[in-house]
Amino acid sequence: MSSDLVLYSYWRSSAAFRVRIALNLKGLRYETRAVHLVRDGGGQHAPDYVALNPQELVPTLVDSDKVMTQSMAIVEYLDETHSHPPLLPTDAAGRARVRALAQIVGCDIHPIGNLRVLQRIGAQFSADDEQKGIWMRHWIAMGFQAMETMLANSRDTGRYCHGDTPGLADLCLVPQVYNARRWKMSLDEYPTIVRIDAACAELDAFHAAMPEQQPDAPK
Amino acid sequence: MSSDLVLYSYWRSSAAFRVRIALNLKGLRYETRAVHLVRDGGGQHAPDYVALNPQELVPTLVDSDKVMTQSMAIVEYLDETHSHPPLLPTDAAGRARVRALAQIVGCDIHPIGNLRVLQRIGAQFSADDEQKGIWMRHWIAMGFQAMETMLANSRDTGRYCHGDTPGLADLCLVPQVYNARRWKMSLDEYPTIVRIDAACAELDAFHAAMPEQQPDAPK
Repeated sequence: MSSDLVLYSYWRSSAAFRVRIALNLKGLRYETRAVHLVRDGGGQHAPDYVALNPQELVPTLVDSDKVMTQSMAIVEYLDETHSHPPLLPTDAAGRARVRALAQIVGCDIHPIGNLRVLQRIGAQFSADDEQKGIWMRHWIAMGFQAMETMLANSRDTGRYCHGDTPGLADLCLVPQVYNARRWKMSLDEYPTIVRIDAACAELDAFHAAMPEQQPDAPK
Repeated sequence: MSSDLVLYSYWRSSAAFRVRIALNLKGLRYETRAVHLVRDGGGQHAPDYVALNPQELVPTLVDSDKVMTQSMAIVEYLDETHSHPPLLPTDAAGRARVRALAQIVGCDIHPIGNLRVLQRIGAQFSADDEQKGIWMRHWIAMGFQAMETMLANSRDTGRYCHGDTPGLADLCLVPQVYNARRWKMSLDEYPTIVRIDAACAELDAFHAAMPEQQPDAPK
């Protein structure tokens, strides 16, 4: 597929998953360039990629001559450059709520359980796979407890995190739920999160962005 | 001071520091309510505070009947509700760049070295103060290396992170530099970051937001 939009992605990256959902919700065609995060020492550390993304993380979105990093910043860019359908509400308080929900995942859950942090607790503290699982589930639980409370207690919550239109908070939440299941976490304490995740799963934009649907997913 | 804006803050919290700078840049009066993160088991865990902020983190901003969490979401709210001076550029690509720089700090440095993560590596891996210092400096270095490259290599960088007006990226960077110094990190490899931090330090809005200037700072 030829496109002006190129997404450097890894099938199982939560952050790339977010951007894939946003691109799909906006109905934008894009070319996927796979960056394998593990094989051969990690494609994110290859010089050509580091020149695009000095953080050596995925995703990176290239829009013609513009190179963009950080998934939530990329989603806001897509929302500002392609207004339909909107991924944030129009009122400032609603936007603050959606961004806060997104940032619970994007700041306070996902980065603490990212691949490089797991590698680091292995290297610095000799954490084994069991210890890594405990670490992961601890931080997901901390974040999900807060999100569940915020979602369950607010009249702003609808079919999705904010009203009846999927947006920035949902496209951060769904990959994190996928990740929680991968780490075999019980989600029984988070019924609102599970309900919203299920509602999102019915949408083609979310389904097509799933890790297993990506061209670089293992067969 | 009486005000409709109430900031729940801790003098040494990087995230609260960001919001204080934004409030000062906007010239907004606000009331500080101190949440002591350590004393008596941590004020962030007290039921009255948890009702405002289910994540049990600072800051929280209350604007009349609106309760807002997550510092970067709060700063965007302030920018949307008080347009002068703007904390983000007007073009989408510039906004994406500033948000990405902010999120390097806000997602990929600060949350991994937050108090609760340090407490966790102590509890789960018996990390002592020396180990905690190694952990902190590792993540700050990872993020600062990327930021330094992005800042030094871009024509968009000016006196501040983006042009000659301080904004969202600067108000995330400065508290992180403060934090790096607290952890006795050498900043020799980051001359652009150090230059921008020094330029910000000359501004009253940044100076008045410094931890030592806060009503809850130790004498």
